[in-house]
Amino acid sequence: MLTYSFEEKGPEPLYVYLAHCIKNDIISGTIRPGEKLPSKRAFAKNLGLSVITIENAYGQLLDEGYLYSVEKSGYFAADVKENIRKKKTPVGEENLVLTGGRRQYICDFSSNAIEPSLFPFSVWSRLLRDELSKDRDRLMETPPAGGVYYFREAIASYLREFRNMDVTPQQIIIGGGTEYLLGLLVQLLGFQKTYAVTDPGFEKIGKIYESCGAVCRFLPVEEGGISVSALLKTGADVLHISPSHHYPLGSRISLSRRYELLSWAAEGDRFLIEDDYDSEMRTEGRPLPTLFSIDAGSRVIYMNTFTKTLASTIRISYMVLPEPLVRLFYDRLSFYACTVSNFEQYTLARFLDEGYFEKHLNRCRTYYKKKREALEEVILKSRLGKKGELLKTEAGLHFLLKIYSKKGEERLTAEALEKGVKIVPLSAFYHCKGDEEENVWVLNYSCEKEEALRKGVEILSNLV
Amino acid sequence: MLTYSFEEKGPEPLYVYLAHCIKNDIISGTIRPGEKLPSKRAFAKNLGLSVITIENAYGQLLDEGYLYSVEKSGYFAADVKENIRKKKTPVGEENLVLTGGRRQYICDFSSNAIEPSLFPFSVWSRLLRDELSKDRDRLMETPPAGGVYYFREAIASYLREFRNMDVTPQQIIIGGGTEYLLGLLVQLLGFQKTYAVTDPGFEKIGKIYESCGAVCRFLPVEEGGISVSALLKTGADVLHISPSHHYPLGSRISLSRRYELLSWAAEGDRFLIEDDYDSEMRTEGRPLPTLFSIDAGSRVIYMNTFTKTLASTIRISYMVLPEPLVRLFYDRLSFYACTVSNFEQYTLARFLDEGYFEKHLNRCRTYYKKKREALEEVILKSRLGKKGELLKTEAGLHFLLKIYSKKGEERLTAEALEKGVKIVPLSAFYHCKGDEEENVWVLNYSCEKEEALRKGVEILSNLV
Repeated sequence: MLTYSFEEKGPEPLYVYLAHCIKNDIISGTIRPGEKLPSKRAFAKNLGLSVITIENAYGQLLDEGYLYSVEKSGYFAADVKENIRKKKTPVGEENLVLTGGRRQYICDFSSNAIEPSLFPFSVWSRLLRDELSKDRDRLMETPPAGGVYYFREAIASYLREFRNMDVTPQQIIIGGGTEYLLGLLVQLLGFQKTYAVTDPGFEKIGKIYESCGAVCRFLPVEEGGISVSALLKTGADVLHISPSHHYPLGSRISLSRRYELLSWAAEGDRFLIEDDYDSEMRTEGRPLPTLFSIDAGSRVIYMNTFTKTLASTIRISYMVLPEPLVRLFYDRLSFYACTVSNFEQYTLARFLDEGYFEKHLNRCRTYYKKKREALEEVILKSRLGKKGELLKTEAGLHFLLKIYSKKGEERLTAEALEKGVKIVPLSAFYHCKGDEEENVWVLNYSCEKEEALRKGVEILSNLV
Repeated sequence: MLTYSFEEKGPEPLYVYLAHCIKNDIISGTIRPGEKLPSKRAFAKNLGLSVITIENAYGQLLDEGYLYSVEKSGYFAADVKENIRKKKTPVGEENLVLTGGRRQYICDFSSNAIEPSLFPFSVWSRLLRDELSKDRDRLMETPPAGGVYYFREAIASYLREFRNMDVTPQQIIIGGGTEYLLGLLVQLLGFQKTYAVTDPGFEKIGKIYESCGAVCRFLPVEEGGISVSALLKTGADVLHISPSHHYPLGSRISLSRRYELLSWAAEGDRFLIEDDYDSEMRTEGRPLPTLFSIDAGSRVIYMNTFTKTLASTIRISYMVLPEPLVRLFYDRLSFYACTVSNFEQYTLARFLDEGYFEKHLNRCRTYYKKKREALEEVILKSRLGKKGELLKTEAGLHFLLKIYSKKGEERLTAEALEKGVKIVPLSAFYHCKGDEEENVWVLNYSCEKEEALRKGVEILSNLV
């Protein structure tokens, strides 16, 4: 009969240890497939244990499938086809492209993330603490698919006041980042549709559409914005644009062109996705009216995000659906749970509702304006002022710098990187190469401190 | 020349008001398309304003596309094709299926959400407060696509200790809920693949695959689990299962069957998605070994979630990829930002790291075991004890109740609902109707308090 020593038993219960021993014997083949195990009573007697202990061990092994029982006959070892072999080849870190992570540059002009020190830690902490102590019930209540209603109300009144948009909370869908919401949109609008993105543009947007299984076309951005005739040539059904502020060109679409686009969308089952990603951070003039607010045909989906205004590490974005799509969304996609935590939805709702967001935006705008002006001054006073040119782009969180240097774009970019300054040429934002302007770089200044920007300009100056 | 009264001007700056007046005239057609506007100097003199004010107003209107300028000639009204018309037909709340929301039942046996009062508010608040005051820098630092590394390390050591899984943090991908991660998986494994889900099963899982554009097949669950020959008939490439605890049948897959499934997956480009959604909440025996831990062929994707152990309103889930898929993930999908907020990733990481999660789970298990036993007792003592039968299912957060009543399934379900008790028949979990057992209901007891469960049983008793 099977005999086990209990000398090596650790702190676990007896039955667990016994089950472990039997299992090892089954895996190693010491107990063969189909072999009958001792009766509980006989086994208990043999090992000097109680029948209950044996029963528990057998029960555990039955649970795990190592044993099977035959009525009125007893317990038998199951057929374990191969030995358990653990793979021991973890993926080496060197093979992984880890996006994000700790900074490694003296000055990084490539990131359009926002300045971390602007995050309103004290107000945020206070509101969150308040929620956690006072409103526990609602924190635990599953919100509708579109998100916490109170939060969507707060966004609706923000949009009414600051973007002149008249929307109901039901039209607003909250999601864990714009990228996630675009994935939902593809599910909503359809995989068989063709999506157009601008060229140049955010590389990521096209990648998302393609990754979600949709066909993506690249629409050249001309002087003055987007041409509807070029758009028609792409055969697109959906156009993704940032009419208020193109990235990286910085241009905006004129009202006249906007109506042409709305007219395009009104013909057939077409949609415009208005990505208003940094409208709040404009440091000059009033924000432009949105496509959504002048759309009478329910063809515009408005998207915005708090990752650009609050923190890129709090993943909260939203989209505003036109009426027919709201119905479709609730019909088709309301089985999805909202991807954003209630804790942060309620905190941000109060942040909006109690006026902190407006103050925060004002503070950010003042800060960025000052930084932008300082950077422009530093550039103009440096050798870049003579050997380069700040190209007039609308006031966002980046601008374009043309550099007249014999080194050429590629070499200058590489040399700068070697010295710890990351700059990205405009040409890198083009999907279809060939027509792009050379020797122009996109300078993002939002996430670097003035001192770092100063050093960055100094290093660049010495290279040209 | 254009003249405007400034009597109705509000608190806004003069130039903003002026721009507003001109814009209205352009929209209404009072200023015709192509009409030249007064020169800045003449207009200023006429209105009694400074030239700067006119300049600012014109600048704003240029920005917004209502004007265009011709060099050395002046400013002209743009061609605004149609009047701005605002849609005023918000979606009525009555048309919307809002999932979630406030409770409306005396007892809801349909929800497998967890008991909200178990959430560890005080520890969570303390850890979060600590993060917000001490580690602000890391909260603002964009994590890799897979999530905060420290959090993934904490999960890796949790899996090592409690699930006997030997994985590296790189293999772990964090996401805002299992639903989101399944969408990512479809992007990773491919739309052209066929995904099989069990029938009966969680309806949502199949919906997600279909919504993401993949083909979904339904695999009947037999006595003893899943049959590989039935699986082969579906033509599936990917099988989504919960081998430790099927929902709603409660059954588990035996070790022998597990090897058959691994053997199936090892032939060709096939994968098993092991959805281990409630393994931590088992109140009897030790958790079963995972498919992932006995997979030598890198064919198993392991998924688990904190929405079932911590709170359904904190959207944090994770998946563990086998080695070849880790590489593929970083190659193809690392452009995605992680959908979970850093604030909650760090808080939960510390919750795991400092041993609170283990304590929390023990507390939950004890609580649920007590509740389950109380509910079983109440049922057995009620008329349901005579007129019904608790079907033996493995100990999860639900069980099956067979009721012998002449009323029939549909009528009893409807009558219960009328009395405020929500019960869902097992047949509702079947996609392919016909073979399902009738007059069996799935009773979830996790999210209701004992008092509500008691009332629910009383009401049901009176109906049978």
